[in-house]
Amino acid sequence: MMNFLEKRILKDGVVAKGNVLKVDSFLNHQMDVELLEDIAKEFKERFKTQKVDKILTIESSGIGIACMCAKEFGVPMLFAKKSKSINIEGDVLSVEVESFTHKTVNQVIVSKKFIRPQENILIIDDFLANGCALQGLISIVQQADAKVAGIGIVIEKGFQNGGKIIRNLGYQLESLAIIESMDDQTGEIFFHKD
Amino acid sequence: MMNFLEKRILKDGVVAKGNVLKVDSFLNHQMDVELLEDIAKEFKERFKTQKVDKILTIESSGIGIACMCAKEFGVPMLFAKKSKSINIEGDVLSVEVESFTHKTVNQVIVSKKFIRPQENILIIDDFLANGCALQGLISIVQQADAKVAGIGIVIEKGFQNGGKIIRNLGYQLESLAIIESMDDQTGEIFFHKD
Repeated sequence: MMNFLEKRILKDGVVAKGNVLKVDSFLNHQMDVELLEDIAKEFKERFKTQKVDKILTIESSGIGIACMCAKEFGVPMLFAKKSKSINIEGDVLSVEVESFTHKTVNQVIVSKKFIRPQENILIIDDFLANGCALQGLISIVQQADAKVAGIGIVIEKGFQNGGKIIRNLGYQLESLAIIESMDDQTGEIFFHKD
Repeated sequence: MMNFLEKRILKDGVVAKGNVLKVDSFLNHQMDVELLEDIAKEFKERFKTQKVDKILTIESSGIGIACMCAKEFGVPMLFAKKSKSINIEGDVLSVEVESFTHKTVNQVIVSKKFIRPQENILIIDDFLANGCALQGLISIVQQADAKVAGIGIVIEKGFQNGGKIIRNLGYQLESLAIIESMDDQTGEIFFHKD
């Protein structure tokens, strides 16, 4: 049985060369906010036993999903920025993160005052592939002496090793769709089944 | 009488040197999603006579607000990207935009397929200062032969000329807070009154 997200990916996702899954018609360029609400509700259900004080994501495509999650959990949302902005004050938590998509290295920063020691932080992002961005966000939470309450990912590329690394570290990682394999010749997408 | 946003700016906004207003505790780094919902409802009221088919914004800090607006209007949201991503297909609408905040020039792009001719596009953004980003978004809507249904801005810097230029072009521009002046010595913020 496919869930609502897997069905939507099959309907509107497009497989491109290089194991790229384009979901720009509903998730990371144009956004279907009703779908984002369903995603937020699903994360609320999966993390219902966790205390969550704040949602953390990284710009840009995580922001919409994280906003809907913040609304669902009734907590503030915080997004990490990818380069030093003159509008952020001096005291920052930062980490270097390599972008798979853009083949660049970014400084990822969060203003220190927005993550307090012992706070329970739920990390949300749209994609998980090699896990570099996610490990950066985990590092930022740790630098603040806060706790990772869990990690919610919309689409995990199961054929890359990010998910395995994160799960081995002991975090509750919930991916709403895990792609086992894709074929850009036939357009087929196969999901991981438990 | 101050509105809910002006009150919040006085409460949590911080005036910094160079006419910078920091609202990073509730609007453009940490986000108060209840406030974003109130903002979205206010835009819905102000544009209630307009037909709106889609919300358009620009990454990153416009995304949260635009998502809440899309939910309120019951339409999809689309965000313009600031540099060419390998995940965007060839057919794009693009324009060069200067960033006041980062002192850089960005290529701002939208995938052509997501704005159809004659569509009614409501443009949403967090800040309006010199209006470069906004004029870029208007240009993108025009390139697509679509219509600007209106422009909703959270905070306008009334002492810069962006708002005047846009209003002179005949657009319905609604700014929820217009700052007349700020004083980084005293921390005072003065709003425009009709």
